[in-house]
Amino acid sequence: MPTPAPLVVSMGDPAGVGPEIVAKAWERRMERALPPFVTVGDQRAVERVWRGPVAPVRDLHEALAVFGDALPILAIDCGGEVTPGVPDTEGARCALAALETAAGLAQSGAARALVTGPVSKAQLYAIGFTHSGQTEFVAERCGVSADNAVMLLAGPTLRVVPITTHIPLAQVPGSLSIELVLAKARATVRGLMKNFGIARPRLAFAGLNPHAGEGGAIGPEEIEILEPAIAILQAEGVDAVGPLAADTMFHPRARERYDVALCCYHDQALVPLKTLHFDEGVNFTLGLPIVRTSPDHGTAFAIAGRDLADPGAMIAAIAMAHGAAERRFAIAPPQ
Amino acid sequence: MPTPAPLVVSMGDPAGVGPEIVAKAWERRMERALPPFVTVGDQRAVERVWRGPVAPVRDLHEALAVFGDALPILAIDCGGEVTPGVPDTEGARCALAALETAAGLAQSGAARALVTGPVSKAQLYAIGFTHSGQTEFVAERCGVSADNAVMLLAGPTLRVVPITTHIPLAQVPGSLSIELVLAKARATVRGLMKNFGIARPRLAFAGLNPHAGEGGAIGPEEIEILEPAIAILQAEGVDAVGPLAADTMFHPRARERYDVALCCYHDQALVPLKTLHFDEGVNFTLGLPIVRTSPDHGTAFAIAGRDLADPGAMIAAIAMAHGAAERRFAIAPPQ
Repeated sequence: MPTPAPLVVSMGDPAGVGPEIVAKAWERRMERALPPFVTVGDQRAVERVWRGPVAPVRDLHEALAVFGDALPILAIDCGGEVTPGVPDTEGARCALAALETAAGLAQSGAARALVTGPVSKAQLYAIGFTHSGQTEFVAERCGVSADNAVMLLAGPTLRVVPITTHIPLAQVPGSLSIELVLAKARATVRGLMKNFGIARPRLAFAGLNPHAGEGGAIGPEEIEILEPAIAILQAEGVDAVGPLAADTMFHPRARERYDVALCCYHDQALVPLKTLHFDEGVNFTLGLPIVRTSPDHGTAFAIAGRDLADPGAMIAAIAMAHGAAERRFAIAPPQ
Repeated sequence: MPTPAPLVVSMGDPAGVGPEIVAKAWERRMERALPPFVTVGDQRAVERVWRGPVAPVRDLHEALAVFGDALPILAIDCGGEVTPGVPDTEGARCALAALETAAGLAQSGAARALVTGPVSKAQLYAIGFTHSGQTEFVAERCGVSADNAVMLLAGPTLRVVPITTHIPLAQVPGSLSIELVLAKARATVRGLMKNFGIARPRLAFAGLNPHAGEGGAIGPEEIEILEPAIAILQAEGVDAVGPLAADTMFHPRARERYDVALCCYHDQALVPLKTLHFDEGVNFTLGLPIVRTSPDHGTAFAIAGRDLADPGAMIAAIAMAHGAAERRFAIAPPQ
């Protein structure tokens, strides 16, 4: 059996905490049993914030060979200066080049999975990036429409899927539809089977309104959208319950009853996830032909370059991508 | 100095878990250092679910005298049968009578504070109860408009105030106004000073939209309502920050930075509170001339009468009411 390919980790914005958390993840590769990975980004950005050994490599075979002794880096020369905490458009171009290279390596099978470091959307938009985020960019490169790429946020004791994401709260009720709920739920079921090895995922749906609408007394969406969608899923054989009152479905005993909570909007999903697992949340994109994860936090420019960044979420993102790749590829892809 | 008056605890719906959790709180009065209290409700409802000693009393002096040996009860004869788990309108009348008596005792000063057990709103509405909940009923009896009674939910590591409460999510954006935010915030500041002894409460406001609107890119309410309201509060000398991204303000380090989180809607406040403190959440009504708390859970008819109910929230509600009464009344009120 050939040696499994390494994972590829894009470094994200060079002025953010990305370089530091990638390097710190490599430092803990033994204690956290991390698989070999190669990072893609600006070598100077790592060296400015971390004193460990870095090994520039030309391909992923070389990365495998050096991983035990140094952080392998597919170096991108970004030009300009990199100042931690001070983002600029040069850095955004560098982050985008790293993302593009890393995504290409994962899509070709040369890398087993893609982990993306945090980028600054504001900086990316400033250089003409037209996708709403890295997820949409990766989805398009994989030939998947953004609607079919589902954002799953996962921590040690909770997985959540926001059915709507970065839209104003006022637009949430009008954006929900039976079709949207079904599309997200079906992709979630497939994704949990394929990537997490859950034979029959248990889905719990959060209601949109307080107390899940109290039988229609506090809003119609549970009756008009969520209940019909859940009934259709149940008829398809999906283990789905709800809509549940959102406030009583995230305490420890309640969380034992499902594998994933499907939530109507961003904060309904992200508030419990980050309340419980702020330093170890992973963003996992379901619905792609490749495995793609990222730490569920931003660039944290305010603490960049000060050796304060916690690599927990990056480590969890690498470990989760590894686990999913192990399940998806019975044999290693061609080298 | 006269002996302090006892607290009064209304039993709530006799077919719910109220009788059981009141009795279990009395059982743990020593280990939890609970102050003397008297409960108001149907004696049979307690005796049907609990084997400990119950002492019917005629007034609060008598309650003080027996508290060490038995659960003192100001008994209300409700008529009909009480079957745990099976609510009916007789029970609702009983719960309302208990609430009315208990509120009157607290308002007169005969009881130092009011703790209300869980009621069934559906049953209360069926007997013509026109208030939206116990809070509104108590507020009216105290001569306070419902708008000026502020619901604070408190657990050991988090306090939250929902600025809007039991309305459909679709109505939340339109219900927010600078005036409403200011009214809730000012009552919150006064309430935390008076009841919790916090000299200068630190308020943190959650944004309405994902990422607190990202500077207006995901919704206008942060810029049009929350920011101006917070600026006015700051000009008044209030320690107020925000609007913050809701998903990153409830993890342990973030919670250390404020005394109360003011949230735009029900689930934004209740999800983190109950995710963290499901079995010990207390509902504290700020803005009343009396101290009033309740356990932050419902009647739990499904487990009533099966010795499964956790008295943690009732115990916390009694303890929190006691602490607030201690702070508010430098001397005991007239006996």
